[in-house]
Amino acid sequence: MSKNGFLVVISGPSGGGKGTVVRRVREMMPALALSVSATTRLPRTGEEDGREYYFLDRDAFEEMVAREEMLEYTTYCGNYYGTPKKEAQRILASGKNMILEIEVDGAAQVKRLYPNAVSIMLIPPTIEEMRQRLLGRGTEPIETVEKRLERAAEEIQLASGYDYVVINQRDGIEACATQICEIIHAEGARAFRMADEIEAFLL
Amino acid sequence: MSKNGFLVVISGPSGGGKGTVVRRVREMMPALALSVSATTRLPRTGEEDGREYYFLDRDAFEEMVAREEMLEYTTYCGNYYGTPKKEAQRILASGKNMILEIEVDGAAQVKRLYPNAVSIMLIPPTIEEMRQRLLGRGTEPIETVEKRLERAAEEIQLASGYDYVVINQRDGIEACATQICEIIHAEGARAFRMADEIEAFLL
Repeated sequence: MSKNGFLVVISGPSGGGKGTVVRRVREMMPALALSVSATTRLPRTGEEDGREYYFLDRDAFEEMVAREEMLEYTTYCGNYYGTPKKEAQRILASGKNMILEIEVDGAAQVKRLYPNAVSIMLIPPTIEEMRQRLLGRGTEPIETVEKRLERAAEEIQLASGYDYVVINQRDGIEACATQICEIIHAEGARAFRMADEIEAFLL
Repeated sequence: MSKNGFLVVISGPSGGGKGTVVRRVREMMPALALSVSATTRLPRTGEEDGREYYFLDRDAFEEMVAREEMLEYTTYCGNYYGTPKKEAQRILASGKNMILEIEVDGAAQVKRLYPNAVSIMLIPPTIEEMRQRLLGRGTEPIETVEKRLERAAEEIQLASGYDYVVINQRDGIEACATQICEIIHAEGARAFRMADEIEAFLL
């Protein structure tokens, strides 16, 4: 039997650059699987059910939640987004490691269900740096930015409950992605994941 | 105040290639400190006290052991070899990480004293491969080789108590050293070692 893969959960305050970093990590480690999420938002042109998302209606999504078939889920702009457990189980059973980029709430849900999941919180170096990033985008009024910063500070207080904390320096995507790849490689060598190899030696 | 470094303990059965791998790791990570061991064996030509070893007489060494001033020690060919605690403390307090290449017994001693030490067991892929390596050296009679293999099998049963297990493939020193460097980098990002950075964000 082949070895199960493990879950890598990348989380952290929004506006911390998670999306960009995870894209780079996936380029560096093409073997890393990304789960297809389920959502209740409508498909956009060119999006295909089962490729970008599993598109579900509200009832179907809520039924899955009620049956505890979601690994984690959240709402965003009035729509549900979630990771079907079956999707994760299928990938991990195939021996692949799987990366999940999710909000801090979702990360806690996943860690409860999969205590061996590797959780990484991505944080900007300082709150001031994060303020500059958010203001620099120019897409949000200053009150919204200040609210997000408050929320970020709350979320970062949970960082010590994560397995790893990686600082996303400005213009440091490459270093940050490399560090995450190193963490994933290292985690593959954790003694409890090497039971088969230890046994193979002893045969 | 600068952050303390951490201890990296490389261990595993002798004949597993620890020495060669650790030399390569140190070339790849020159910032990694190596402690100077204490020994009761006599200095060889060119060796300097405090550089290759701290050369002690038996009484002095045993006194240090009695005063619990050794992080770990062992005997080999009738001589004591050990790591003075002071030496380790000095290096770690300077913020440097420190690598220790020691026998399996010593590794357990270190882990008891420094639970946050990162322990890595280095093992050959199979016992047959190890037999070939030892026989290939041609320096030991076959009975000695078989005894060493028995001992290796016993030691490798302790692997699950280590943090990491790294397989030292034949001709795979480069891959093996790289994996150890990745583990050391990753361990630097463990959430409990990032408390200062988390606090810096919140300031």
